[in-house]
Amino acid sequence: MTPGGVKAIFEPKSVVLVGASGVKERAGMAPSMIFRSVIHNMLRFYKGKTHIVDLSGRVGTAVKSFRQVPKKQDLAVLVLPPKLVLRHLRKLLDRRVRAILAITGGYTREQRGELLRMTSKQGVRVLGPNTIMGVINTANGLCTIFERDIMPQRGNIAVISQSSGVGAAMLDWAWFYGTGISKFAFMGDRIDVSEAELVEYLGGDKDTNVICVYMEGIRDGRKFIDAVQKVVGQKPVVVLRGGVTQGGRQMPSRAASFAGQDKVFGAAFERAGAIRVHDIEELFDVANALAKQPPMQGNRVAIASNVGGPAILAADSVYREGLVLANLSDKATKTIIDRYPEVDPVNPIDVATDAKAERYEFILKQVLADPNVDGVMVINMLKSCLLEPEGTRILAEVARKFKDKPIVDVSVGGVDHVLVSEVLKGTNVPTYNLPDKAARALKALYLYGKIREKVTRE
Amino acid sequence: MTPGGVKAIFEPKSVVLVGASGVKERAGMAPSMIFRSVIHNMLRFYKGKTHIVDLSGRVGTAVKSFRQVPKKQDLAVLVLPPKLVLRHLRKLLDRRVRAILAITGGYTREQRGELLRMTSKQGVRVLGPNTIMGVINTANGLCTIFERDIMPQRGNIAVISQSSGVGAAMLDWAWFYGTGISKFAFMGDRIDVSEAELVEYLGGDKDTNVICVYMEGIRDGRKFIDAVQKVVGQKPVVVLRGGVTQGGRQMPSRAASFAGQDKVFGAAFERAGAIRVHDIEELFDVANALAKQPPMQGNRVAIASNVGGPAILAADSVYREGLVLANLSDKATKTIIDRYPEVDPVNPIDVATDAKAERYEFILKQVLADPNVDGVMVINMLKSCLLEPEGTRILAEVARKFKDKPIVDVSVGGVDHVLVSEVLKGTNVPTYNLPDKAARALKALYLYGKIREKVTRE
Repeated sequence: MTPGGVKAIFEPKSVVLVGASGVKERAGMAPSMIFRSVIHNMLRFYKGKTHIVDLSGRVGTAVKSFRQVPKKQDLAVLVLPPKLVLRHLRKLLDRRVRAILAITGGYTREQRGELLRMTSKQGVRVLGPNTIMGVINTANGLCTIFERDIMPQRGNIAVISQSSGVGAAMLDWAWFYGTGISKFAFMGDRIDVSEAELVEYLGGDKDTNVICVYMEGIRDGRKFIDAVQKVVGQKPVVVLRGGVTQGGRQMPSRAASFAGQDKVFGAAFERAGAIRVHDIEELFDVANALAKQPPMQGNRVAIASNVGGPAILAADSVYREGLVLANLSDKATKTIIDRYPEVDPVNPIDVATDAKAERYEFILKQVLADPNVDGVMVINMLKSCLLEPEGTRILAEVARKFKDKPIVDVSVGGVDHVLVSEVLKGTNVPTYNLPDKAARALKALYLYGKIREKVTRE
Repeated sequence: MTPGGVKAIFEPKSVVLVGASGVKERAGMAPSMIFRSVIHNMLRFYKGKTHIVDLSGRVGTAVKSFRQVPKKQDLAVLVLPPKLVLRHLRKLLDRRVRAILAITGGYTREQRGELLRMTSKQGVRVLGPNTIMGVINTANGLCTIFERDIMPQRGNIAVISQSSGVGAAMLDWAWFYGTGISKFAFMGDRIDVSEAELVEYLGGDKDTNVICVYMEGIRDGRKFIDAVQKVVGQKPVVVLRGGVTQGGRQMPSRAASFAGQDKVFGAAFERAGAIRVHDIEELFDVANALAKQPPMQGNRVAIASNVGGPAILAADSVYREGLVLANLSDKATKTIIDRYPEVDPVNPIDVATDAKAERYEFILKQVLADPNVDGVMVINMLKSCLLEPEGTRILAEVARKFKDKPIVDVSVGGVDHVLVSEVLKGTNVPTYNLPDKAARALKALYLYGKIREKVTRE
């Protein structure tokens, strides 16, 4: 199946927003309120052509009837109660839209069936229903979420979420931490477009370098695994699964979607080359590293730190993740102490508390050039050290020169991390507030190195 | 041994700061520079009497000679190179100080021996040398760190750190996140006052409810274990150990302090009743819960959430930590659905996206009163929900009414978590940005319940 219709969902040239501003189904989260917010975001952010159809005829710029909308729109976004969707679907399909994004939930089984039957007969693809938030594309400004004025920073990480709640939390996280996002999609009930097709589409998307998936149940495990296998040679797929324990499966409203034991799927994910994570923070920590740095070709890590204790914690983290500390070559060791006798060059390398940018730069170059080293974790504290936040910019410059080995940064703590993040954001160096998180990021880069190697071999 | 001298280190009525502003030993971190910063912080924060002795006679308000300082000062803070300390120690001891805090490092083995010999002969206790940052007491404003103008918020968590780097990172973390701190102490070389004595002192400190320890090696394992055992009946001890893997032990400058295998110590820690954590974030996550909430008397957790997906992740986290989801009693279930038919009362309880404070309050009261429930994790998302940040204040009110069962809060994400933290800070409800962190906090509360039970039985 070609992802042509799926492409129309993310990259429409023109969109028709359909709602009924006068219908109040229940307090608060009424589709009519959501409709107004989606209009707000689309008019603010979307660069294509937007048509608004308000069946209640109340929204200022809207037309009241589908006939007033030109035919062959790429995407129709439906923010209507299910009954109204089905009542007006024929008229909408007559306009020959290519794809439908069905935001509102609350469909009965029969209503879902009817929606699928009518659309598939016309070859119209449907994302949803019950996507709640819909889709974001930071490249063309498509933004069908109802939280007003939220548009993540443009970047290379795509996120698809089965749960709207987890999706909203991930969106909030990405927005708050300035994570660079390419696409964001809420899958909803998946009556038509599946996670497999989304992965396949994102696999071919030039704006996406990393694909993140939150899922509970899988609609078609075989297809999903195939899709993952197909894309991991080009870009990593990071999967967070919910409902993997007895507790997570207890929620009755979700029970139907648990297609099998997590162990079985875990093993299948792994074989397919997906990288598994366990919480939202790890998802973004890992995705940031994968988006910015090359895979790590071996498990030998060098740590360069201006403080002793955090370097020890970092070394512990490295081993806890199944990586090891590299034994620096004699050449690198000698070059470092010849220039900086005050440095202890045994890994973890103590660059000493008075190290500034120049010393970091010199040492990192030796370490990255060392054939015994596969990747580097840099620890730069500001508190009780002489390094200035601005000095960490050197990391991005060094990283640009060594494109074959990953480098990740750690500023342990609170204020220190904020200051360093401010300098390194927008660069190719991911930065973390704890060595443990950086170690998990390196582990993911190592795993992805192995995954790519396996794909190339096959 | 009575901790009398140790008390003088944290609760001096009068302090003499000793330095030599004219001595520049090396660029940057010279003791003279540190001296000026310590003076700055002490004059700004410390509520007791401060005398300043500048052996170089340059600092404005300082006297040049020890003889100008009244006898029997509680604490002398030495910010001098080792040679100068030893040259002037006799004159200082003649003033009959009760305790010494030796900030500067770089002592030889002989110099350390000499410092200990001279002080112990007079019964003067020494913290350090090489504490680098010294001591903070938020109650009396004692602040001998050289990072200017940093004084954590007053609270009930005490932190002692063997490593100055990890200590500085923990201080930065606590300062940034507004963690309530009672005392902060950097142990340094521990020639005299040991971690065991610090734990014992903090065990008797009325301002401290939770004791956090970062350590690599242990000076006297038996004494430390004894001290922990002695205090855990009254207050929890949380331990983060560094250098527990092959990697962490590799740093030669630290090798001497590794007294034994981590397994042995881990088992001993556990027997003694210490709660073990694995990174700085977990340390504070756990300490915050222990400082604010009662121990959990069983392992049965109720989750109440206004979003489905995050509740599923939360349930997974609960099981991953070895806790279980509580089966709500029929009474609680019935009371909840009688009042709110839209709520799904099967744990994890879905209070629905339109829940506001009143609904949370009603449901939490039923759940906390339920004998089948030992503790509660509340998830309140703002994004895509109708709850207002201010609405979460109800959690603190409910928690005040149920003092026997812990309640922890999760606002999953970035902005949401900041908004809710702002409302709940200063209350008795700890709040987290991920269910996993809240689950670890509940696990610690459960562990502490078992530890206290064991102590009471013995």
